[in-house]
Amino acid sequence: MDATLAATEAFLHHQIPITAAMGVKVAAYDAAGLLLTAPLEENHNHLGTAFGGSISSLATLAGYALLWLELGDHTAHIVIRSSSLSYQKPIRGDLHALCHHPLPDDLTAFKARLEKSGKARISLTVTLSENGTACATYQGEYVALR
Amino acid sequence: MDATLAATEAFLHHQIPITAAMGVKVAAYDAAGLLLTAPLEENHNHLGTAFGGSISSLATLAGYALLWLELGDHTAHIVIRSSSLSYQKPIRGDLHALCHHPLPDDLTAFKARLEKSGKARISLTVTLSENGTACATYQGEYVALR
Repeated sequence: MDATLAATEAFLHHQIPITAAMGVKVAAYDAAGLLLTAPLEENHNHLGTAFGGSISSLATLAGYALLWLELGDHTAHIVIRSSSLSYQKPIRGDLHALCHHPLPDDLTAFKARLEKSGKARISLTVTLSENGTACATYQGEYVALR
Repeated sequence: MDATLAATEAFLHHQIPITAAMGVKVAAYDAAGLLLTAPLEENHNHLGTAFGGSISSLATLAGYALLWLELGDHTAHIVIRSSSLSYQKPIRGDLHALCHHPLPDDLTAFKARLEKSGKARISLTVTLSENGTACATYQGEYVALR
């Protein structure tokens, strides 16, 4: 595994212990965005599909993790301000949450505002898909503070 | 503990295993609504406050659990359709998620629709408070299917 992904996964498991219990893995960080996965076994509901709470938790985490990696240091505090989630289809296997990269201009503006005023806000989108079909779509507003 | 609360807690821990790892307790079901709790120790983030993902997961679960108890049987499938969450303040201690009772007329209409058409939708509100102050407010749309 790429060293950055392994270090991020270790950081998450150590600092946010429920992510270890969920079996969260940092699977990829590439042109598509940041991909987190979690096994169905630890995250199923009474129907044997993915628990809605685990879906929302994994999506929330994917946004945090993308910002940590984008900011490249851990001196900024990142907090979540609000989120919304639409559940379209049940997830019958392992969970895959892809946090999409923000538009380059939005990311540049976010970093510049954080640098200048010590506070900046950004909106992120996370898609939970199975076999190429979107099953849940998440939007989160995050604030970074220095 | 009241037998209904104990049975509900055992059902959740057995059927949705991450709720056992989160240390979820079914604390009360009374005129105020359904109260779930979870210890900070299992649900903190890197800042030592409640992890946003655990907040969203506990709120999602509180809505499910209230509907299970309101419907009084487990023959209906309850699924979540959408949710939104506003995070107002960090939670520095254990998590308390209160799912408020729906208005009596809304609950009556929900049950009647489920009975008549086999499908009904209801919106629920969950408040996460600490020392009497609301820290996060959740709205969820749930669908029951027979």
